[in-house]
Amino acid sequence: MYTRDELRWNGWGLRRRGFDLKGRDAAVWSFVAETLGLDALPETPPRRLAEITLPTSRLEASLLATLREVVGSERVRTDDYERAFHALGKSYPDLVRLRSGDLSSAPDAVVYPEASGEVLAVLQACAERRVAVVPYGGGSSVVGGVEGRPGEGHTGCVSLDLTRMNQLLQLDTTSRTATFQAGVYGPDLERALGKRGYTLGHFPQSFEFSTLGGWIAARGAGQQSNRYGAADHWLVAAELVAPSGAWRTLAVPHSAAGPNLNELVAGSEGTLGVITEATVRVHETPEARDVRAYLFRSFAAGAAAIRRIVQAELPVAMMRLSDADESQFFGTFRALLEPPGATRAAAERGLAVAGFGEGRCALLLGLEGDAPNVRHAKRMTAWLCAREGGLPVGTGPGESWEVRRFTTPYLRDPLLDRGVGIDTLETATSWSNLRRLYEAVRTALRGALGPRAAILAHISHSYPDGASLYFTFLFAQERGDELAQWQRVKDAASEAILAAGGTISHHHGVGRDHKRWFDEEKGPLAVAMLRAAKASLDPEDVLNPGKLI
Amino acid sequence: MYTRDELRWNGWGLRRRGFDLKGRDAAVWSFVAETLGLDALPETPPRRLAEITLPTSRLEASLLATLREVVGSERVRTDDYERAFHALGKSYPDLVRLRSGDLSSAPDAVVYPEASGEVLAVLQACAERRVAVVPYGGGSSVVGGVEGRPGEGHTGCVSLDLTRMNQLLQLDTTSRTATFQAGVYGPDLERALGKRGYTLGHFPQSFEFSTLGGWIAARGAGQQSNRYGAADHWLVAAELVAPSGAWRTLAVPHSAAGPNLNELVAGSEGTLGVITEATVRVHETPEARDVRAYLFRSFAAGAAAIRRIVQAELPVAMMRLSDADESQFFGTFRALLEPPGATRAAAERGLAVAGFGEGRCALLLGLEGDAPNVRHAKRMTAWLCAREGGLPVGTGPGESWEVRRFTTPYLRDPLLDRGVGIDTLETATSWSNLRRLYEAVRTALRGALGPRAAILAHISHSYPDGASLYFTFLFAQERGDELAQWQRVKDAASEAILAAGGTISHHHGVGRDHKRWFDEEKGPLAVAMLRAAKASLDPEDVLNPGKLI
Repeated sequence: MYTRDELRWNGWGLRRRGFDLKGRDAAVWSFVAETLGLDALPETPPRRLAEITLPTSRLEASLLATLREVVGSERVRTDDYERAFHALGKSYPDLVRLRSGDLSSAPDAVVYPEASGEVLAVLQACAERRVAVVPYGGGSSVVGGVEGRPGEGHTGCVSLDLTRMNQLLQLDTTSRTATFQAGVYGPDLERALGKRGYTLGHFPQSFEFSTLGGWIAARGAGQQSNRYGAADHWLVAAELVAPSGAWRTLAVPHSAAGPNLNELVAGSEGTLGVITEATVRVHETPEARDVRAYLFRSFAAGAAAIRRIVQAELPVAMMRLSDADESQFFGTFRALLEPPGATRAAAERGLAVAGFGEGRCALLLGLEGDAPNVRHAKRMTAWLCAREGGLPVGTGPGESWEVRRFTTPYLRDPLLDRGVGIDTLETATSWSNLRRLYEAVRTALRGALGPRAAILAHISHSYPDGASLYFTFLFAQERGDELAQWQRVKDAASEAILAAGGTISHHHGVGRDHKRWFDEEKGPLAVAMLRAAKASLDPEDVLNPGKLI
Repeated sequence: MYTRDELRWNGWGLRRRGFDLKGRDAAVWSFVAETLGLDALPETPPRRLAEITLPTSRLEASLLATLREVVGSERVRTDDYERAFHALGKSYPDLVRLRSGDLSSAPDAVVYPEASGEVLAVLQACAERRVAVVPYGGGSSVVGGVEGRPGEGHTGCVSLDLTRMNQLLQLDTTSRTATFQAGVYGPDLERALGKRGYTLGHFPQSFEFSTLGGWIAARGAGQQSNRYGAADHWLVAAELVAPSGAWRTLAVPHSAAGPNLNELVAGSEGTLGVITEATVRVHETPEARDVRAYLFRSFAAGAAAIRRIVQAELPVAMMRLSDADESQFFGTFRALLEPPGATRAAAERGLAVAGFGEGRCALLLGLEGDAPNVRHAKRMTAWLCAREGGLPVGTGPGESWEVRRFTTPYLRDPLLDRGVGIDTLETATSWSNLRRLYEAVRTALRGALGPRAAILAHISHSYPDGASLYFTFLFAQERGDELAQWQRVKDAASEAILAAGGTISHHHGVGRDHKRWFDEEKGPLAVAMLRAAKASLDPEDVLNPGKLI
């Protein structure tokens, strides 16, 4: 785990790390400016924490005293850094607010429990006084899932930081399951398993700075979800603590004893209880790995290859297909970070001659597992890619992806320092509806962002019946109006997603930012049902108010 | 679909079919008697419907008039045959009651809707008068899931028979999903898909006489669940109708928009709404199939082979391992139905010499899918079975299994005609706990059934983290005390299951019979949460009262 002051309170990751432009800053910034139709990029540094006055803590002294009794006084924090750190997550609007010095969402205190019993005592003390409690793991939510704001009728807000609950409790190598306290960070979890020869295989882009409990709460998916599945897939059992008490699900491989409550826990975003423990399916550390790239002449051809592979039930780990704009943008961007040379231009000419010109789309195909399965999948995927006109381009792009798979989020901060906004959103739909959804979201984003924004997309997760679409967009910030600009874009894209039959989120979650569309997607009866379920566990409605339900 | 009078009201399946003893009746009955330690079997025929007086229908004339208006008068039935047919399901205690003439659970009327709008109107008319509504598909529940008994405070009970809602609404061959009305019977569903080259692959033993909606409501699993998954796995979206209105889930391949409501629908057993439509994942009709058998020297060795295969992520469709008692019992039973000959005795001697004597356990291993996957799995499973000392014995047992896979339930009626009780129960747990659970349930059954009952078990469904256990037991009925005898056995087995960490059901469901242990398994907070969810959709609590929640 990290100490809080190792990490940025208003940006990504470790303070001592950042996105490495490899001394090619000028070239990168002029490429970005040119892409966005700007002559030059402004300097837009964030405000420093020392310059910002936080709202006064609203907690009654008696509650603070109780919290200190429960967890120990050194684990109840009310200093500015801790409150600022826990004020918001890592979404684009969160960063805009943090960088502008808006700390109106700073919780009144931050509490670090170390056991389920402490969580229960904290929840009950808070519920009694109608103080909101926001469960907090890595804080990497990009949908407003950890905003430290009390709900209506609440007298304050406590951020409940679970990261001290980070122990491996049991590894069952026969059943291939592991039980962890839920506040464990990704790298610590993989280290604990890796030492014994196992892996969970859950590697979202936020992997280094997100926790097991957060992955489950937000129903997240890692980059190798074809093999390992999203959180709802690998969750075997969980313990939750709500104001009404602690409850847990039974660790069994399948059950017909009523609804699967694990599937209520996954995606519950802290509203049905604080996830304190989880039993998860693990795999042996893969014996073999293979990540290679293919180029396709069109997005449709690449998507067809993915569809055929997943419907052929082949044991693949990852398939990630960039559309033409994304393939081109990141191709150019990465080329800028490399030493200049003639090789690339010659290769480009060769590709163009073969029909893989500007419209080409890059597929990254990852295999891992037992060697015979990887061999089988390698042969079969090569054949299915060839059927759709795919051109194998070797393992180089895969190796380059391995290097940067967790560093890309560091790029956002330097962009924001230069007046460039960058955000992502994602959805999923059936294969037969994928093209329609893709076009609808692109059109909505283009309409809201204007003609010079960069709108990039890829398919990142695939299933026999459909796939996810992940959009990344870069745009010149409207200075002084950043939040309204963002909301306009968000509204347009979200409405387009729902109108075109997509889900409002494939793996980011709902939080505060998607709540309106979540309500629409589920419909009033289902939302009322979930509200009723929540009320039975949390009658004072103190668990993560304003999020999800 | 079937007309109701083609089917047995107090037994299994079509009246014109039965278990074919192939003229070997005397040999079979003397084997059964000997197994159970009896000199001879009694004659215990069921009562005839004409001899039984049904309770008077309690429905107000005004409700009947409304129902007739909604669905048409020929689709509201109050005659004895329809009421008797819908009184109970097909569990052992249900059959004991039906055969004894206990029709106290006969619903007051049977209504056959043909559209979701009709279902809503029926539910609202019944809710207004606090008349219970029991959704009914194939009626094959073995846990009391369709008993036509009103709950407390209800003024009557209507059985809502969905089998006229049986149309294929859409087949999306690109996304490999199909949308059906939920009352479709298994054979009709597979016929509709098969004509277009597709299959759902859901073949429970009840396949011929159960419906899509029932499979989902009870969270059922088919015999090839390794490939096709249980109902919760292949369900993409559903429409439900509750007294509060109709609601549906969105058909997307994965979503992080809150909890997965499909996983609440699967296993809801009619308590959260009547399932009227479902979109399901389908597969191409398999290109290749291979079902072959292996013998193992012990149950543990066979279980280890299954575990290794499923953890190796090989594309298998089915693995079914009988314990020594089951292997022996069914081996002998089937031999009795074959013409006598010397081959078998010689083979037995050879097997015994090789260490596959009386303790041997038979594994049936089924593969299906694309030919390259089947070839790959065939090679790898052969190697993994060999590692555990498995002896390949060819495709003969698989062919024999294919023939009888849906006919075994027909055996129960002739057994009941001869004073022999037969029941099944099932559970699941992790691999590391499987032996403990197996021994605990066997011990409990032996204690409750006495020394001469036949207690047989097999592993029928397997997962990377665990497996199901399926028990079949035959016993001499305690004449006149059949229900108390059964309850004693049920209590003992269920308590053993929970105490040993199993789930009260892997694929049969909860219904009325497992409710007590369901409450214990889930715990009071989770049960209260589900009750609250139900109350928001069904405030008058008329949907399938007394079942599940």
